[in-house]
Amino acid sequence: MSPSIHPFDGIYDHEIKIASKLIKDAHAASDNVHFIQMDRLDPPKKDMIKYLEAERYGAPLPSIPRVLYVYYYTNTLEFNKALVNVTVGHIITKARLPHGVVGPFLPEDVQEWEDYCLTHPAVKAEIEKLKLPKGYTVRNDPWIYATDDPNEKRPLVQFFMYVLANNGHSESNHYSLPLKFSPVFEQHTKKFVRIDFLPGGFDETTTPTGPWHVVPGVEYHPDLNGETVLRNPKPLLVQQPEGPSFDMSGNKITWQGWEFRVAPSVREGFAVYDGWFKGRQVFYRISLSEMTVPYGDPRAPYHRKQAFDLGDCGFGVNGNKLGLGCDCLGVIKYLDTRTTNGTGEPKVLPSTICLHEQDAGILYKHVNYRTENAVVARKREFVVQTIATVANYEYAVNLKFVNDGSIDIEVRATGILSTMPIDENVTVPWGTIVGPNVMAAYHQHILSFRIDPAVDGHKNTVCYDDVVKMPRSKLNPYGVGFVTERTYLDKAGSVEQSPFTNRSYKIINENVVNPTTKGNVGYKVVMPARQMILADEDSFNVKRAKFATKQLWVTKYQDNQLFAAGEFTNQSQTDTGVGEWVKGEDPVRNEDVVVWATLGFTHIPRAEDFPVMPVEIHNIHLVPFNFFERNPALDIPQATNSFNKSVLAQVGDDVAPSCCKSTL
Amino acid sequence: MSPSIHPFDGIYDHEIKIASKLIKDAHAASDNVHFIQMDRLDPPKKDMIKYLEAERYGAPLPSIPRVLYVYYYTNTLEFNKALVNVTVGHIITKARLPHGVVGPFLPEDVQEWEDYCLTHPAVKAEIEKLKLPKGYTVRNDPWIYATDDPNEKRPLVQFFMYVLANNGHSESNHYSLPLKFSPVFEQHTKKFVRIDFLPGGFDETTTPTGPWHVVPGVEYHPDLNGETVLRNPKPLLVQQPEGPSFDMSGNKITWQGWEFRVAPSVREGFAVYDGWFKGRQVFYRISLSEMTVPYGDPRAPYHRKQAFDLGDCGFGVNGNKLGLGCDCLGVIKYLDTRTTNGTGEPKVLPSTICLHEQDAGILYKHVNYRTENAVVARKREFVVQTIATVANYEYAVNLKFVNDGSIDIEVRATGILSTMPIDENVTVPWGTIVGPNVMAAYHQHILSFRIDPAVDGHKNTVCYDDVVKMPRSKLNPYGVGFVTERTYLDKAGSVEQSPFTNRSYKIINENVVNPTTKGNVGYKVVMPARQMILADEDSFNVKRAKFATKQLWVTKYQDNQLFAAGEFTNQSQTDTGVGEWVKGEDPVRNEDVVVWATLGFTHIPRAEDFPVMPVEIHNIHLVPFNFFERNPALDIPQATNSFNKSVLAQVGDDVAPSCCKSTL
Repeated sequence: MSPSIHPFDGIYDHEIKIASKLIKDAHAASDNVHFIQMDRLDPPKKDMIKYLEAERYGAPLPSIPRVLYVYYYTNTLEFNKALVNVTVGHIITKARLPHGVVGPFLPEDVQEWEDYCLTHPAVKAEIEKLKLPKGYTVRNDPWIYATDDPNEKRPLVQFFMYVLANNGHSESNHYSLPLKFSPVFEQHTKKFVRIDFLPGGFDETTTPTGPWHVVPGVEYHPDLNGETVLRNPKPLLVQQPEGPSFDMSGNKITWQGWEFRVAPSVREGFAVYDGWFKGRQVFYRISLSEMTVPYGDPRAPYHRKQAFDLGDCGFGVNGNKLGLGCDCLGVIKYLDTRTTNGTGEPKVLPSTICLHEQDAGILYKHVNYRTENAVVARKREFVVQTIATVANYEYAVNLKFVNDGSIDIEVRATGILSTMPIDENVTVPWGTIVGPNVMAAYHQHILSFRIDPAVDGHKNTVCYDDVVKMPRSKLNPYGVGFVTERTYLDKAGSVEQSPFTNRSYKIINENVVNPTTKGNVGYKVVMPARQMILADEDSFNVKRAKFATKQLWVTKYQDNQLFAAGEFTNQSQTDTGVGEWVKGEDPVRNEDVVVWATLGFTHIPRAEDFPVMPVEIHNIHLVPFNFFERNPALDIPQATNSFNKSVLAQVGDDVAPSCCKSTL
Repeated sequence: MSPSIHPFDGIYDHEIKIASKLIKDAHAASDNVHFIQMDRLDPPKKDMIKYLEAERYGAPLPSIPRVLYVYYYTNTLEFNKALVNVTVGHIITKARLPHGVVGPFLPEDVQEWEDYCLTHPAVKAEIEKLKLPKGYTVRNDPWIYATDDPNEKRPLVQFFMYVLANNGHSESNHYSLPLKFSPVFEQHTKKFVRIDFLPGGFDETTTPTGPWHVVPGVEYHPDLNGETVLRNPKPLLVQQPEGPSFDMSGNKITWQGWEFRVAPSVREGFAVYDGWFKGRQVFYRISLSEMTVPYGDPRAPYHRKQAFDLGDCGFGVNGNKLGLGCDCLGVIKYLDTRTTNGTGEPKVLPSTICLHEQDAGILYKHVNYRTENAVVARKREFVVQTIATVANYEYAVNLKFVNDGSIDIEVRATGILSTMPIDENVTVPWGTIVGPNVMAAYHQHILSFRIDPAVDGHKNTVCYDDVVKMPRSKLNPYGVGFVTERTYLDKAGSVEQSPFTNRSYKIINENVVNPTTKGNVGYKVVMPARQMILADEDSFNVKRAKFATKQLWVTKYQDNQLFAAGEFTNQSQTDTGVGEWVKGEDPVRNEDVVVWATLGFTHIPRAEDFPVMPVEIHNIHLVPFNFFERNPALDIPQATNSFNKSVLAQVGDDVAPSCCKSTL
């Protein structure tokens, strides 16, 4: 490995080239190798621990080879996975995966399928029947086919079809004009399979395609949305005249006591590694692991609407090019994602990750009422942000490192609702009418964040504390007492939610005692109680996404166990992720554990969520809990206006003439 | 009423003077009138509705007299309440309240009691026994006495005693050095009642005062906390070179589609009134209504630790003087609170409320993956903030008006934990050791926010939606369907929490149909499921704070029903608030309703919460739910860098020399 490459660096262009050449060389040209995804694997943790220790203490660094995984199709239907050592340049393994294992979508394929679908005679014939008025055309969104049949082994893609209004504008909102037929094709052979027809009434009844009746689109683009008088907010500038407070060396960031590495990932968006705060180890790796979006409309073919946005598509490969002054404010550093195209050439996805600081209000304050002396410090956050567009929806993932040693994982859901046609004068109990003849079905967003902790080292324990009433007794005669009860997880598994006992999850180190509290050091995982996946326990939706049934899972660390629903989710029949990994009931007490935090929210669309949805924000907080001996933020300079340069607003009485009239 | 005074304006100095003169004139000098609190009452709502309609439509304004309530003691033990019409200048009613009704603390009294306690012979004798080393002295915090005895009718105050370290610094943290005796006095007569002794071991056993053994204090003040090397964040400036986007006329604020009034309140901090967004009425009044802080340590006298921070003390009268560049950043407008002193003179509490704008990240975004065209708007908030210091604790209340029509009520808890002495080598299951011989007991902060809605008018209905699985059927053969079920509140009462059905509270207007969704317009009240008050149902803690037992209450509007635990909470035996008001089971469907949202959090102190606590943040969101026909924020200008002026960070590879060495 080149000394300038860190094992946690994202994939490099030359690595993509080496791997794709090796794979292509290993196949006959007639195999038609078509690359779908490649990225580097994390090195084995036992090797990395040695590497990181050597790095930290300035010892000679062990050599760790760079290994990529490569997904590719051959002969358009055979899905293969290879592991390639790009440091020495050889294929470690290469295998055709079992029939029925379907790879993720490659974004450039999606656009190609889109065009192909529209020009296919069967689809053209169906469009013909719409008798669209002049200027109206049809657009489609290729969708993951998902699962309802154990015998279906073909990689399939389902196309949802929409009318594109006659405004001639590229950003016309086709999602507001859904059509009632939906072609299905084989993904790579492009074989036509059938056309599904979509119900428009209260039940599963469908009707043949007939002439489309013009309804106005609900437009989001400023050119089209009809808002002629805009609001006039005054500029609010975030400026750092002395530059930002963070520094980077390679992909290592140091900021206000925090040290960690960030690496782009085609599947996860990004991962952060080897996190320390004030010289204390906190985590080995944190990333988004999976997201599933099951819909509650039971009618065929909507019963199959269950996206896995990481496993089926990939967050990194769908990462937005983030823009200055748009996606975050201030002094911004951008990172690119490297990916492959279908022919194995490297492709840069520019500025998919942004790094910046933000103020987050007061961190702490106390006023001594006797003297009126105030002590005030500001909360400052370092944000690692990525935003992915998964067809209609956008998700912003912010990992925020806070100057008090906490970490805030924030998800903002925005974008456009996935819509269905609905007939005039119909309402349904599983969806909201969001425009003329357009309905948005209830659905859930269920994300799994994989937290590989290292709270003062790798041997950690997960426990939870309940707060319970004390019984009345001589000690508690007035019935006011309450105490905490701690339960330890001894075996891999999950924890039930219990909001009414204030259940609070902790990751502790049983080998380290906090000198102040005399208890173990730890971090708490703060998540409000949430509805988990609603589908039946024996539904495909649940079988494919066991992670979505519980808010917190704990497994014993194993290399390459990264994805909560398993490695291959597209058209999966069953989960091969955390639901499987806990079955062995590995001991997890005082072991190298991994915590899987399920952030779920049931989305009942509002009219206000259309045609583009104001963010719905959800968070997981990782908060030091008796990790430090006292508030670790006492070394933050006090907030002062010589530093912060705020000014008085000249509004109201400050500018208006006095209301007291002259007596002249 | 002077035409320049709006009925919703806060109290004016001249009104305080008029009222105190009238009260003093109505009593003999020998009555020793001692004022405790006064503020204006809200006008009767039926009158105000006429006034506000006239105001909105430019009609002549009806005359509405200004009426104050006045609390005062006579002859040091008799607690009185008067209502005074300060427009015409007469006392409407004046009455001595029943023996046992105790008024709130007047802040200047607290400081006087503090000095008095320290110089009382019984206390001096106890201090003597400590044999404090040279330079060490004693400080005390007067505390609300609370309740454990139905026969106790005297207004009492309990003093918690602390050592003040020998550093000669006014900001030395006495809370880290609690003593084991606690004098009790009559509040106004200053009669000594007794000394309570505090346990230091696992049980309720106490010991007589003996010599104090020196332990180091845990200091928060920068002069004392021992942090010699401070972190060096670079300035992060929030600037509005063109000024803020809001305007004020009197106490009316207009900002980005929002219109409302803000008024300081000595009890509540502030209230906002008559809120409209984009010409649609949303609320009549919103304010913090009460907060109770019960402690879980069952040992006497801690079993009585249950503060009511509004009713016992007052948020407004304890409001901090907010400072530029400390409590919020940017372009700030400050408002003052007016209060009375003990002699009835007006007193200005400067800058207790700040008004400003802040950026809150992305409001919405969509990228058309076909064209890579992005539509992005920023979330902007208008913040009304107050911060109150209630002895050791600080609470920041932020009411944030958002440019998408939502309102975010945010509470930040910070300040210093209320501490207890603990002996060496003892741990307790109801508290955390946070320093040498100092323990912070588990406790709860339970706040009630009073939301008086006016969703498209005053006749509103509260309902809640549960999201439930559909049974398997012909329509739902795969078991994936789910639907919402709506339940309406017909009678005043409360709603149980139900996080696992995603229960979501709505305030709707059954008289108005949303043309898009065909359902009723509404706002949802978003609150995560929380543990409510833990004390026994028949404990004084619960009897005094019924509001703290349920997350959401609904009452039919009645004038002067403002405070969730009732008007007088200090040493109250029972609740006279929402717990009583629901007993009549008033009809609340399509009526003028009031919603009481209980924001509760159980606080298990961490070592990191001491000696000053990083904020714990909790929120209630009021979100338009099918109130608008579509996203009401489409008229926000798109985010652009010509407007936002962000810049690239010059860090890492951008400034470091290339890692590729020269081959020379």
